[in-house]
Amino acid sequence: MKLVGRMNRAAKLELGVRNPRNGEVDYFISPPGADQVLEQCGHMREAQVAWRSAGLGHRIEVLQAWGKSLDAHRSRILESLAADTGRMRESAMEIDAVVSSIERWCRWAPELLAEPPERTAAVPFVHLRGASVPYPLVGVISPWNFPLLLSLIDAIPALLAGCAVLVKPSEVAPRFMRPLRQATAALPVLSKVLVFVEGAGETGAQIVNYVDLVCFTGSVETGREVANAAAARLIPAFLELGGKDAAIVLADANLELSTAAILWASVVNAGQSCLSIERVYAAAPIYDDFVRMLVERARSLRLALPDFESGEIGPIINEHQAEIIDSQLRDAIARGATVRCGGMIEVHGGGLWCRPTVLTGVDHTMKIMTAETFGPVIPVMSFETVEEAIRLANDTIYGLSAAIFAADEREALALAPRIEAGAVSINDAGLTAVIHDAEKQAFKFSGLGGSRMGSASIRRFVRRQAHLIKKVEATDPWWFGR
Amino acid sequence: MKLVGRMNRAAKLELGVRNPRNGEVDYFISPPGADQVLEQCGHMREAQVAWRSAGLGHRIEVLQAWGKSLDAHRSRILESLAADTGRMRESAMEIDAVVSSIERWCRWAPELLAEPPERTAAVPFVHLRGASVPYPLVGVISPWNFPLLLSLIDAIPALLAGCAVLVKPSEVAPRFMRPLRQATAALPVLSKVLVFVEGAGETGAQIVNYVDLVCFTGSVETGREVANAAAARLIPAFLELGGKDAAIVLADANLELSTAAILWASVVNAGQSCLSIERVYAAAPIYDDFVRMLVERARSLRLALPDFESGEIGPIINEHQAEIIDSQLRDAIARGATVRCGGMIEVHGGGLWCRPTVLTGVDHTMKIMTAETFGPVIPVMSFETVEEAIRLANDTIYGLSAAIFAADEREALALAPRIEAGAVSINDAGLTAVIHDAEKQAFKFSGLGGSRMGSASIRRFVRRQAHLIKKVEATDPWWFGR
Repeated sequence: MKLVGRMNRAAKLELGVRNPRNGEVDYFISPPGADQVLEQCGHMREAQVAWRSAGLGHRIEVLQAWGKSLDAHRSRILESLAADTGRMRESAMEIDAVVSSIERWCRWAPELLAEPPERTAAVPFVHLRGASVPYPLVGVISPWNFPLLLSLIDAIPALLAGCAVLVKPSEVAPRFMRPLRQATAALPVLSKVLVFVEGAGETGAQIVNYVDLVCFTGSVETGREVANAAAARLIPAFLELGGKDAAIVLADANLELSTAAILWASVVNAGQSCLSIERVYAAAPIYDDFVRMLVERARSLRLALPDFESGEIGPIINEHQAEIIDSQLRDAIARGATVRCGGMIEVHGGGLWCRPTVLTGVDHTMKIMTAETFGPVIPVMSFETVEEAIRLANDTIYGLSAAIFAADEREALALAPRIEAGAVSINDAGLTAVIHDAEKQAFKFSGLGGSRMGSASIRRFVRRQAHLIKKVEATDPWWFGR
Repeated sequence: MKLVGRMNRAAKLELGVRNPRNGEVDYFISPPGADQVLEQCGHMREAQVAWRSAGLGHRIEVLQAWGKSLDAHRSRILESLAADTGRMRESAMEIDAVVSSIERWCRWAPELLAEPPERTAAVPFVHLRGASVPYPLVGVISPWNFPLLLSLIDAIPALLAGCAVLVKPSEVAPRFMRPLRQATAALPVLSKVLVFVEGAGETGAQIVNYVDLVCFTGSVETGREVANAAAARLIPAFLELGGKDAAIVLADANLELSTAAILWASVVNAGQSCLSIERVYAAAPIYDDFVRMLVERARSLRLALPDFESGEIGPIINEHQAEIIDSQLRDAIARGATVRCGGMIEVHGGGLWCRPTVLTGVDHTMKIMTAETFGPVIPVMSFETVEEAIRLANDTIYGLSAAIFAADEREALALAPRIEAGAVSINDAGLTAVIHDAEKQAFKFSGLGGSRMGSASIRRFVRRQAHLIKKVEATDPWWFGR
């Protein structure tokens, strides 16, 4: 994004935000100064003490009420999210996903945060108990592709665990914060421990300097900066970074199913999803049929122009990302790739768009097969042996997720653990976008830290404290007698 | 340690190692070049593939056989460890702890690494399965205070999880590696995936550059360097760093028990333990009695001179650490502290020694109350209210562990979660030194990452992979219909 600034009446710099449907800068945000961020953190640390000590039952009640408030503010949040991202259907999905995740976490939390009963230790006369001590202040730095969902996916379990959470959404898609704040203001207790702050990279860097744990979702480049800043302070950093998810289609796979699933997992949100399928390896015997059917399906999808409802494919949200997609397509074409459909960035009414694109004649010398594209682009290669398919799928710096299509589910399950990625969809693709209850971790440069998905996620926000209780009122402590 | 070098016959630099009992450089190590470390890592990655695929049952058999081999080599390992550290009793404890931890992990691993059965997801027609994929190559960088135990505490669960483990013990206490290698060579399969390498900081830095996960035990300063290097590569770093553990003695505590426990938790291994008690807060009404009894007990302990068995207190292992202890004692005395016993570094036969030292008249302006001492020094302050005691205990950059003594265990347990530390011993001190089955995490600058203790430890060495299986052979993937 090209940053556009203006001074407001208080002579403070505001950052302009581009509208992805018309390219106009029609919204402004006011990043706080470092002193304001620090002050905010101080207030939140104070509020967290009461939030923690009020107990889980109270926190569940507050979050359930917040879920209702989000529902009540649904139309305004949806409108803002659609303005942020230029698409409507995925915006509605984001709201649904957040509301249902609040319900899910409120249901799960009591069991997940319960302490096991006191037990005896391996050493005589000593009993053990555990306690979970929340990190007081969690920082969340979230991206522009699913602005609402990814700003809250870590915040919700962290709040239930007893943390205060300071969230900085991306400066590219910040409009949703206003109605979200209104929905949160209905719960005064919550609005002291869940705070949204506007800003760009500078504000994100300040947050990492003041919190006790940071969750970051975004690029590998920025993720590494966050990891470095966190390492310098010796605080945990949970990173969810890029992906270059591969789909492997075996010779006996159902081609109707695999072309439909791969297409949708590649083009939903116009491919602006870390877990979108970005490359396909199809077995040589079915390669031609696969490509033909995929192209046919891809051609049937329309750009959502002139209205949100006119088609399935929204605009490219971030101008800078459109440049990356364009450059990767040009690189592939220059190196001999064949465009079977789509194939370029189109400008319509000031917005930047990309039709579902299928490429053949590609190989791993091309950026389109190795670098994250974050667009609705599906390059397809053929393979001769399963070993070759596995090797190609693992020939990447990323390891987020993958998909395998096979007639025999057992064959796919035998291959899955050989794929260096945190999640493998079998006979479907991108399932982690909708299934959040499966524990998974990123491999390689796709991330760092415990699983954001599944019930284990909430334990990332508490530190385990052991209580070791000497039960005998003897004068001799354990050390004597050794 | 002052590094003493010499060239060996192959014109390669060797590092001299000081003997802590006589101060003489009587042992040399040969750090490998970076190319040799890289080559070693390559061999280990190859061996890890077979180690992982051979299955847990095989790995348990190999580790149990290794435990027997360690027992068979016990006298040589003990001799080398005693030469490394200048003390005998704690060396025997180290071997016992390692052998019993092998047994414990072999018993625990099958349940801890088992996958739950396939289950249905929250989305129709999708089933979930999990897999655990070990990090191929784990690096361990371990310290000189418990050279054997701390080089293996992470290595044993990592090996069972299916990783290969490259260990670099401290250059200050490397003698034990030779008999340990001999004990390991009896198991050729194991010696390909468990390798010990000699070297100082440079070798440690090379290891962080080549492995997939690093475990470090040592100082905050070096730990931060490890964290930074790991962050740059986006690999997990599990850090166990310093401590400044506090003991709080309430007015109604049993003074026989508390003085005995605190003394031993402070002076075992001559205080060279991260979880030794390094400061005491005693309630004002019992302060004088507490100090009198503590000093009396401390005076009864003797230096282990001239022989290992002549007393309880061994030498200061690391020359550099003796300088730190000396400087902290001088600082405290200059600022008005009173030495009740001990109080200085003594030189005997070339070794550096420190008698159990009790200080009064101390406060938090003195380094002895805020910086890690790593010596048998017990500064004692009085407090008026429990709130003051908690505040003083938390007034530290560290958060490793702590101890509370009280007549009523429930009172102590109510205070424990307010102590910012990963473990709290109740009516005993330093219990985590001997009890390894309680999950705990470091607070503040005492460390980073999941619990090294307790059954959760082994899960640090595998990444969770989710398998999301579409069960219906329908042509419509999940995405349709939304």
